[in-house]
Amino acid sequence: MSDCELCIRSTLPILWQNKTFRIVLVNNQNIRGYLRLELIDHVKEIHHLTPAIQSEMYKIINIIEQIITDIYKPEKINLASLGNKTPHLHWHIIARFMNDNFFPESIWADPVRHNKFENSIDEINQLKQQLDLNLNH
Amino acid sequence: MSDCELCIRSTLPILWQNKTFRIVLVNNQNIRGYLRLELIDHVKEIHHLTPAIQSEMYKIINIIEQIITDIYKPEKINLASLGNKTPHLHWHIIARFMNDNFFPESIWADPVRHNKFENSIDEINQLKQQLDLNLNH
Repeated sequence: MSDCELCIRSTLPILWQNKTFRIVLVNNQNIRGYLRLELIDHVKEIHHLTPAIQSEMYKIINIIEQIITDIYKPEKINLASLGNKTPHLHWHIIARFMNDNFFPESIWADPVRHNKFENSIDEINQLKQQLDLNLNH
Repeated sequence: MSDCELCIRSTLPILWQNKTFRIVLVNNQNIRGYLRLELIDHVKEIHHLTPAIQSEMYKIINIIEQIITDIYKPEKINLASLGNKTPHLHWHIIARFMNDNFFPESIWADPVRHNKFENSIDEINQLKQQLDLNLNH
C-alpha cells in the first residue's frame, strides 16, 4: 500500500531477508539489541497468514531470540506485535537490560533513565553473521 | 517459585486451562477483550520451551486472536510477551479499538482518554464457550 511505511523500502539497516520476511536493526530508538521482523507483504493480522507462513515466522522469531541472547546476554527478551499505527504485520524483538532507559517497564512507557545506547560494529556484524548462518539453509 | 505472582493462583477469572497453559480474562485494566495466556510452569523465555510446547502455544494464540476478532470486532489485535517484572512466560492478547483509552499507542503508554470499559456477561460467556469449543479436542 502506497501510504504504508513498511511497504516502502525501510531506512533502517536490513540485517537479513528472504522472499517473505526481512529483519531490520532498529538503531534509532536508543536501545541496544532491538530487531524488527517485518512481513514483506501487507497483511494486517497474524491469523490472516497461512499456517506455513505462521510457522516460518515463529521459527525465525525463535532464532532471533536465541541470537540476541547469545550476543547481548540480556536480562529479558521482549516480543510484541502491535501495529496500531502501521497495520502491516511486524514484530518487535527487543533485548532488555536492567539499566536500559525503560526497564522494568515496556519500551512504550515513558523513559525512567536518559542514557545513550547503541550497537557496536562488532555486535551488528555478529547479528548479520548469525542470522545468515541460522536462517540461510 | 514462591515469589512469582503467576506461580500462585490467579485472582483473574480463568476462562480455560489444560495441563500446560491457562487463559485468564484481564478485567482490571479498563480494557475490553484483553486476555492473558499463561504458561503454568515457571519458564522465563520462549526459546527455553520445547518445539512441541511452542507449537501448542502459537496454535492457542492464533485461536484466541480469531475468537477475540469474532466476538469484539476490534480495529487491531495487539500481542506481547514482555515479562520484565514477572519473568514467567505469559502473553498479552488485546483487542484494540479506536476509542479505547490508549489507541493508537500501546496499552503501556499513558492513557489519552479516560473512559470506562468492561466486558459484558454475554461477551465473557462467548469467550468461554468459544475457547472450549476450539481448544478442547
